[in-house]
Amino acid sequence: MKKVAIIGGTGYGAIELIRLLQLHEKMHVKKVISHSQHGDSLASIYPHLTDFIEEPMDELQIDKLEEEVDIVFFATPAGVAKDILPQLSNSKLQCIDLSGDLRLSSPTEYETWYGKEAAPQELLDQAVYGLSELYAEEIKQASVISNPGCFPTSALLGLAPALEHQIISPQGISIDGKTGISGAGRTPTAKTHFSETNENVTPYKIGQHQHIPEIEQYLSDKAKTPIDVAFATHLIPMTRGLICTMYGQLVRETTTEELLEIYQSYYENNPFVRIREAGVFPATKDVYASNFCDIGIHVDQRSNQIIIAAAIDNLVKGAAGQAIQNANLMNGWEETMGLHTIPVYP
Amino acid sequence: MKKVAIIGGTGYGAIELIRLLQLHEKMHVKKVISHSQHGDSLASIYPHLTDFIEEPMDELQIDKLEEEVDIVFFATPAGVAKDILPQLSNSKLQCIDLSGDLRLSSPTEYETWYGKEAAPQELLDQAVYGLSELYAEEIKQASVISNPGCFPTSALLGLAPALEHQIISPQGISIDGKTGISGAGRTPTAKTHFSETNENVTPYKIGQHQHIPEIEQYLSDKAKTPIDVAFATHLIPMTRGLICTMYGQLVRETTTEELLEIYQSYYENNPFVRIREAGVFPATKDVYASNFCDIGIHVDQRSNQIIIAAAIDNLVKGAAGQAIQNANLMNGWEETMGLHTIPVYP
Amino acid sequence: MKKVAIIGGTGYGAIELIRLLQLHEKMHVKKVISHSQHGDSLASIYPHLTDFIEEPMDELQIDKLEEEVDIVFFATPAGVAKDILPQLSNSKLQCIDLSGDLRLSSPTEYETWYGKEAAPQELLDQAVYGLSELYAEEIKQASVISNPGCFPTSALLGLAPALEHQIISPQGISIDGKTGISGAGRTPTAKTHFSETNENVTPYKIGQHQHIPEIEQYLSDKAKTPIDVAFATHLIPMTRGLICTMYGQLVRETTTEELLEIYQSYYENNPFVRIREAGVFPATKDVYASNFCDIGIHVDQRSNQIIIAAAIDNLVKGAAGQAIQNANLMNGWEETMGLHTIPVYP
Amino acid sequence: MKKVAIIGGTGYGAIELIRLLQLHEKMHVKKVISHSQHGDSLASIYPHLTDFIEEPMDELQIDKLEEEVDIVFFATPAGVAKDILPQLSNSKLQCIDLSGDLRLSSPTEYETWYGKEAAPQELLDQAVYGLSELYAEEIKQASVISNPGCFPTSALLGLAPALEHQIISPQGISIDGKTGISGAGRTPTAKTHFSETNENVTPYKIGQHQHIPEIEQYLSDKAKTPIDVAFATHLIPMTRGLICTMYGQLVRETTTEELLEIYQSYYENNPFVRIREAGVFPATKDVYASNFCDIGIHVDQRSNQIIIAAAIDNLVKGAAGQAIQNANLMNGWEETMGLHTIPVYP
Repeated sequence: MKKVAIIGGTGYGAIELIRLLQLHEKMHVKKVISHSQHGDSLASIYPHLTDFIEEPMDELQIDKLEEEVDIVFFATPAGVAKDILPQLSNSKLQCIDLSGDLRLSSPTEYETWYGKEAAPQELLDQAVYGLSELYAEEIKQASVISNPGCFPTSALLGLAPALEHQIISPQGISIDGKTGISGAGRTPTAKTHFSETNENVTPYKIGQHQHIPEIEQYLSDKAKTPIDVAFATHLIPMTRGLICTMYGQLVRETTTEELLEIYQSYYENNPFVRIREAGVFPATKDVYASNFCDIGIHVDQRSNQIIIAAAIDNLVKGAAGQAIQNANLMNGWEETMGLHTIPVYP
Repeated sequence: MKKVAIIGGTGYGAIELIRLLQLHEKMHVKKVISHSQHGDSLASIYPHLTDFIEEPMDELQIDKLEEEVDIVFFATPAGVAKDILPQLSNSKLQCIDLSGDLRLSSPTEYETWYGKEAAPQELLDQAVYGLSELYAEEIKQASVISNPGCFPTSALLGLAPALEHQIISPQGISIDGKTGISGAGRTPTAKTHFSETNENVTPYKIGQHQHIPEIEQYLSDKAKTPIDVAFATHLIPMTRGLICTMYGQLVRETTTEELLEIYQSYYENNPFVRIREAGVFPATKDVYASNFCDIGIHVDQRSNQIIIAAAIDNLVKGAAGQAIQNANLMNGWEETMGLHTIPVYP
Repeated sequence: MKKVAIIGGTGYGAIELIRLLQLHEKMHVKKVISHSQHGDSLASIYPHLTDFIEEPMDELQIDKLEEEVDIVFFATPAGVAKDILPQLSNSKLQCIDLSGDLRLSSPTEYETWYGKEAAPQELLDQAVYGLSELYAEEIKQASVISNPGCFPTSALLGLAPALEHQIISPQGISIDGKTGISGAGRTPTAKTHFSETNENVTPYKIGQHQHIPEIEQYLSDKAKTPIDVAFATHLIPMTRGLICTMYGQLVRETTTEELLEIYQSYYENNPFVRIREAGVFPATKDVYASNFCDIGIHVDQRSNQIIIAAAIDNLVKGAAGQAIQNANLMNGWEETMGLHTIPVYP
Repeated sequence: MKKVAIIGGTGYGAIELIRLLQLHEKMHVKKVISHSQHGDSLASIYPHLTDFIEEPMDELQIDKLEEEVDIVFFATPAGVAKDILPQLSNSKLQCIDLSGDLRLSSPTEYETWYGKEAAPQELLDQAVYGLSELYAEEIKQASVISNPGCFPTSALLGLAPALEHQIISPQGISIDGKTGISGAGRTPTAKTHFSETNENVTPYKIGQHQHIPEIEQYLSDKAKTPIDVAFATHLIPMTRGLICTMYGQLVRETTTEELLEIYQSYYENNPFVRIREAGVFPATKDVYASNFCDIGIHVDQRSNQIIIAAAIDNLVKGAAGQAIQNANLMNGWEETMGLHTIPVYP
């Protein structure tokens, strides 16, 4: 049984890690670390955890971490992991960062989009991008994982096969993202205030979302050519769930059926990707509280475009679930360990 | 005071007409006609109408309609208005059809997309498409109006200026539609069942929605060149509200500021279109229960695309409100009569 | 046309006043006053008001108020109106306070439940409780109105007839309140954070809500005997709407039919109270965005209790709408002026 | 590994059983039986089950059931289990009926409240009421379980200790039930239509709900005196979750602290009941997708009443979860087997 520490204990990413790890056979949560609320019990903040996590949260003691645990999950806001990780570089700890700190290979890009100082270049070079299906071999060798953003997980899983098979042009790709409000985290703001958000679709950060360079970097990597995308994100009045609907310009003749075969083949060894049959698209609730990414595909002959939608639970495949999937890969365990659960429906 | 009949009295379109007409100075509802529930009072079906509409609904008597009322709104399912309207062709009635029966100029197209027999060609020729802002002059002369669909209202108002000004290519346009569930009407189905729809985004009719040919016909008309679009629609867990997010490929250099000026100028005499300033996009709740169409624009230099979003209330500007706006135009009244109300917020 | 000032311009009470007053024939909004955001335009905060209220908000200048306006609505947090109102006591202004400052006749009670210093006794004595249906005659003579709380409006309208007719005991009354989240105002908090509130029923302030003494004071007044109630409130995942379900112990034999007659007769001259027939109860959506209070009644022979439910829109009949209704009464206008609109449905 | 059959395979009860049993160590689903859709795969109806349950559903063959499985769950509508169960009376099958067929000991009562013919008296006598915490000893000996209704589960767990300890009077009890829409099942109706149910609280079956005699029978059993309750149920705009807020008349002096001790002691060996501390009440989301029943208590000295709220997930503790808990008890397994999961939050 490997021992786990979770840093950033009071955010949604952390409590989702706790929920999922409770079902894991080879990891258990040893320490929950919170800077702002150490000393409090998690159950006092989150009553749903009553009888599960009653111990007080700890303050971070970097020098003791290696002796106390084997695996560290960073469920911290942007800008925290990049400062802590260099201090752990000589340890045997496996580190998985759920924040955006290590996702962009270029420090300049990070500073442009995140408005913060970037991580040191050598840390960026060391970190492996943890999109489990697309970078499994690299992940298996990694000690530091940069866990993907929620939108990039959906967008990359949806677009990579079409781009790698040169079905669509690298130009003219549009990604329409729709996310539940939990993606905005636990801090109350006007944007997450129930009365403003309920019964409402709110476009936000149009063309300016920090997930744009992340999507482009890895799409470009897979397509082996530079790619820029139009990306518009929308807050949807639901708590969990995320779907990107993607539009690409066809560069050769194809059919929905051919494309489905390409996708099925591409993901045939990936238990968490499920491809819908022709004429059927996934809804976000089909993957609720689970680690699946469900994908639907339509070749739109009339407009000479393809339409692809990829649905995930933003807190699971888009965050905590994929982090555990990566830990499984890093440790040579069954990829689905602790994650092979049926989505909660309805 | 002109007298109004509403045919199709128990649907959401009809009760929204009733709600809005209660505030109108020059029209009042004389008859509510229901085929399936004549004899019942509307308030027994819709308790919110208690003390407003207590009389029983009538059955349709076509030959008496002309003497009883001046204006007829068809809030009927597809396939009804096209059979009744020819029988009124010699009357002086002003007829406004909220269904899709008269929206496509080609009977073949109608039969392909609607799966029903089309209206007679002469009726199609006679009907004027009631997108108030784009066809005001024609509407003022019309006796039969084909009221636009909800998605086409948003898509056409959002895209027409950019196409007319040749900012974007007629090729490669993608429209991502998001609608509240009331757009699916009042008949309970699995798709509108609360437990399945709540906390869920459901893509549906991807590339196959009957609003596609309507959007294309009038976009082509405005752009003066044939246009095919990729169109994907999504059910959102809210009752009212609709937003299309639209992506177009730029064909010349421009900026968000230039485009905003073009749009403001295009709609400067249209009181129901409100253009947001740079960096701000409308949310659907900004127009809740009102006749506004709010538009946001972003020129995405990196991907060489524009992103436009146009928000409406699907039951008001997307149905009953625009029908009243058209009646105002047809009768030479103030265009905003009965409609100049502040959206319900929050 | 009387001129109106609204103090507390950025809260939900204020913008609901603005929405409703836009339809009023005899009042118009002259000044919107905000302490924290004067100088900003309301439309910059609330884009739904674009083209309606573009002028900047003002700072409060007490000494100019009387010359500038005729009627002042206080849509302020607890503790503000009580300090301003004494400075207006020699003016001819009609003042309507939507906060709780003047609702309790005992300063001690106020200080116990609100945790703030109470208003001066003479101001409390001067203020008339603005539950329009129960205190219409007093309201017509008043210059200072204490507008009721949302829960008390529902509870008092629901219980007063049964108590006045001595159908139920003054002991053993339970009131189960359920409210949409907008009742908590516009300030984001954990309790109003979408991800925590959505798909959730949250009991709060059980037995400790500041509306308890208000309900008891006026129930006692109507029943002419001291009354204490058990009162439990619940946040419901919706924006607007409030319903109290009330349970009382029968003290004499009766039937649902007899009780319905009593209630219909009690409210026969009150256009905003609608009594449902036997076997039918109102839903909150039946009164959405309107000033109605809809009431359902059931005599539960088996348990010897009555069950009464009274539904209102918490922002209209529970706040801004009733404030306008009171202004109508104070000025001798038609009670329904500006308020006789059909609820928004669905 | 015991083999399980689920009869009534396409309802929400059945798919929740499937979800939960996927995590169970000693039971696995061998057959899913559907009368109306046998031959179809569950995944074609419920895409979230893709890759989990791909085999077609079976038709019921009563005579083969005993050889094929060990345990049968009836997730059928009212009136089905009572006809099938007598045909299995000589088998060794363990049968758990999630419908209401066997809950009332009196056939007359059943026929009055359900409007259907009752089960044979001997079957009613044989069946043990499966409220796990209150009837554990009987359940351990049973071969036929009548699984409780969702409201009774909450109401009985909330009220039993106070009644058994004679804290409250058997007269004057009021129960205010609030349930998510999934309690109404999967068949689309006007009452479950999103546009009518969203942003709405709908009282229904006031004083007439078929759970009333069930609550009264077992409350009377525990209190050892006849009890009649006032019971009002409300549809809440959420999918899952149920809370009963209960009001009782105090018959002796007590405090919240004393009552909390009584409750904690009463449930000290019941891992699925969690008692909140003084001043804190549970929200339905605290138990989402889990088998917990969380209880909050307040002694309202002013009104001489107690207020108790008990929150469950209607599909888990209120249906499928409790059925599995009962199977655990019947088979001598750990009571929490397969059910000790953290609620899904947020």
